[in-house]
Amino acid sequence: MMEKGREEGKKITFNINKNEKFSEWFSDIVDKAELADLRYNIKGFIVFRPWAVRCMEKMYDFLEEELQRKGHEPAWFPAVIPEKNFKLEGEHIKGFSPQVFWITHAADTELEERMAMRPTSETAMYQMYSLWIRSYKDLPFKMYQRAQVWRYETKATRPFIRSREFYWVEGHDCFSTEKDAEAQVGEDIDTTEYLMHKKLGVPFLALKRPDWDKFPGAVYTVGSDSLMPDGRIIQQPSTHFLGQGFAKMFDIKFEDKDGKDKYVWQTCYGPAISRIFASVISVHGDDKGLILPYCIAPVQVMIVPIYTTENKAKVVKGAREIEKELVNNGIRAKVDDSDNRPGEKFFFWEMKGVPLRLELGEKELKDKSLVLFTRDTVTKRTVKGKINEIIKKEGEALDERLKKKADDNFKKSIVDCANFNEVKKAVESKKIARCNFCSIDKDGEKCAEKVEKELTAFVRGVRYDKIEKASGKCIVCGKSAKHVVYIAKSY
Amino acid sequence: MMEKGREEGKKITFNINKNEKFSEWFSDIVDKAELADLRYNIKGFIVFRPWAVRCMEKMYDFLEEELQRKGHEPAWFPAVIPEKNFKLEGEHIKGFSPQVFWITHAADTELEERMAMRPTSETAMYQMYSLWIRSYKDLPFKMYQRAQVWRYETKATRPFIRSREFYWVEGHDCFSTEKDAEAQVGEDIDTTEYLMHKKLGVPFLALKRPDWDKFPGAVYTVGSDSLMPDGRIIQQPSTHFLGQGFAKMFDIKFEDKDGKDKYVWQTCYGPAISRIFASVISVHGDDKGLILPYCIAPVQVMIVPIYTTENKAKVVKGAREIEKELVNNGIRAKVDDSDNRPGEKFFFWEMKGVPLRLELGEKELKDKSLVLFTRDTVTKRTVKGKINEIIKKEGEALDERLKKKADDNFKKSIVDCANFNEVKKAVESKKIARCNFCSIDKDGEKCAEKVEKELTAFVRGVRYDKIEKASGKCIVCGKSAKHVVYIAKSY
Repeated sequence: MMEKGREEGKKITFNINKNEKFSEWFSDIVDKAELADLRYNIKGFIVFRPWAVRCMEKMYDFLEEELQRKGHEPAWFPAVIPEKNFKLEGEHIKGFSPQVFWITHAADTELEERMAMRPTSETAMYQMYSLWIRSYKDLPFKMYQRAQVWRYETKATRPFIRSREFYWVEGHDCFSTEKDAEAQVGEDIDTTEYLMHKKLGVPFLALKRPDWDKFPGAVYTVGSDSLMPDGRIIQQPSTHFLGQGFAKMFDIKFEDKDGKDKYVWQTCYGPAISRIFASVISVHGDDKGLILPYCIAPVQVMIVPIYTTENKAKVVKGAREIEKELVNNGIRAKVDDSDNRPGEKFFFWEMKGVPLRLELGEKELKDKSLVLFTRDTVTKRTVKGKINEIIKKEGEALDERLKKKADDNFKKSIVDCANFNEVKKAVESKKIARCNFCSIDKDGEKCAEKVEKELTAFVRGVRYDKIEKASGKCIVCGKSAKHVVYIAKSY
Repeated sequence: MMEKGREEGKKITFNINKNEKFSEWFSDIVDKAELADLRYNIKGFIVFRPWAVRCMEKMYDFLEEELQRKGHEPAWFPAVIPEKNFKLEGEHIKGFSPQVFWITHAADTELEERMAMRPTSETAMYQMYSLWIRSYKDLPFKMYQRAQVWRYETKATRPFIRSREFYWVEGHDCFSTEKDAEAQVGEDIDTTEYLMHKKLGVPFLALKRPDWDKFPGAVYTVGSDSLMPDGRIIQQPSTHFLGQGFAKMFDIKFEDKDGKDKYVWQTCYGPAISRIFASVISVHGDDKGLILPYCIAPVQVMIVPIYTTENKAKVVKGAREIEKELVNNGIRAKVDDSDNRPGEKFFFWEMKGVPLRLELGEKELKDKSLVLFTRDTVTKRTVKGKINEIIKKEGEALDERLKKKADDNFKKSIVDCANFNEVKKAVESKKIARCNFCSIDKDGEKCAEKVEKELTAFVRGVRYDKIEKASGKCIVCGKSAKHVVYIAKSY
């Protein structure tokens, strides 16, 4: 099955220095590993190919299970939104209207009202919430949908990182009190931690965004910033505390215990699966290609039989038996018994990021042993014993190593900077600068503009998960600093 | 969690004669069981609510696992199709253009080329196939996507049955020979059999459609017809043998073993999950509401503790222990310890179609027994022993009973008719008529038109899974019959 994606005659060699030539590395691995095809004939729209889709389906499973465990119910809302809904929340329309695709016709008929292809679903969902939520007993009301959204991006698009169509989950929750809603922001970040870090080994900083960088219509936004090998931050799932703004526009009220009608407090949360996958590819990969976490790899173990013409049948049979044993134990294992040479197979599946490989030939059959190759360490050793237990343990250990390595790199990438010049040096050497800054409230925007203009870097915000007390001067204006912020180049 | 969907103060009583007032029954159960909400403010677009989405997600799992088992790879193609692609296949554009929603603008900019929201994805996918398929080694090429499609339906819409947006899977396969492609049609019908009948207990007839009723662009179409309680057929998954028409338009060629370039042979297959769910609801439900198959029910077992103020804590604790035991064994179990009276709880969860219920009070705690209620038979009995084993067995038995009952009904609904008058009587008494018919090739269309005009019924086609030999006269024109066809009213 899997090899079918491999185009005949395509060269399989891959060797690009990821850290030095990240942009080339990324484009090339997307193509070579057949993650996506950019040749679809609408600009900014791409085709996601099986090897990537299988990984992302697993990511969806992890995320949705976690959301449901935390009390969210799944729903499916229409992909289209009437123009009038879309215009109800002033800030929201201002923020999103430059990005909306409009449906104006059905067959030859001009529609009476234009429909937006959803760029996000607040204005689709909240009118329904106002019909469903009646009493404090209905709260908290926690719902999500797995969906695609469409945004007319004018920035350059890159597969997985930024396209005009992307795959995400959006969670939209309502609460009876401000406090409960604000607590949900923390829960959402915990969900990001679960998916991105615990499962996929990609570390991030949860940062409360500056006032000028919040979601259109939100009171405040907490973003998750992860680092790419080129030293640029990529924004991963954001959570938005919406206050009661949308509730008032969409009339989402409940009768509280005291008999009074009140507006709900809201949050929304938008993890983009296709974008998180960009981080997974980029953070873990090496110069030889992908390294997929064991927990999402479409093939967790590739079994390569090493045979001669004489013993082929016997060795392949042995390989099939191992495969069966592993598959019966819920492990995604596969035998590559194609006509390619072993070396070609090794190279190909290493490039595709298969975390573990088992090799067996005549000798191993006799010894009841197997040669185990682990993709991240690029090492081989002989193993004996219950193979399904060995594989499960090795898979988990590999994921732990990926996480630890990424964590160590991430930690080293954050540097304390005492002045503007140090910040400049930090961001130019692919680091995240931590420094004193006057304020992430409105009055700090001028200083942020100077950072952007002079360093093409951005003030990403202040830590959400812990309080970092500023003590000193703003690295830009020299006034007394109210916040410790993180500054980096970004996607 | 689940009860959150239940709107406060909403009446939970449900009692409608399904077979006599099916239309009312269907509308009411969609509303009462909170399967969908029709109040979304674009005509023909509805919101699918959690209780239905959880069922349909399970259906997706079954279908996708089966497709993958049969060698299909998952991919995600763009939701939008350039107008020029769409126009490449003449019959296809003729068939679909009355149904297409068009995107003409992005923000304030008019697009250079209009984009169709996919009504189906042949014209999106096949241009990519022509890039990916090179050699006979790439074949068979079997791919599917889970997706929504949008069609500007002008017929009356009904939730799940016909909407302007629906949820499906589309499989698109390529082969090196005509024979392999035609064999795929059979495999697809086997997949329909697996999902619809084996798992969900909904019987159907696989019928090769008359020439005038095939998919636009296909050589022939095999549809799956299932019966609704009002005696109307509903078309379920269809498979289309496409021949080489699309291959020629989209230039999908391969180098065969003989070194020659040849066009591939194609099939496509489109099971609509939301529509199959309409059959599941309708076929199995009874006058009291839904009866969900155990294998897809969001809650497979509802545990209702029966307590007084005095023993509440103890009984609820016992219920929680049962819940934990079941959940640990992979069973979707839940305790309803809300403040509602037991009778209300029974009534509500019966209406929602929960297949099994466990009741326990002081007596059961003492006896280490439980009262088990099965939704389809509406009977109770006392059970003792390993509860997870009991539940699994009971769940499977319930699904078997649902299937058997549906099969028996379906069999009885097919009646042999010797002449036009008998066909008339059959379709008017909610049956499917089987009869001699001149031909389902082009020259039979006039007779079919007469059936449609006089009986508002349709010639659905001939059996695909077995040969039924015609011997006699066409029930319409009296000419020698070439085919045995099935005629019924339809959705």
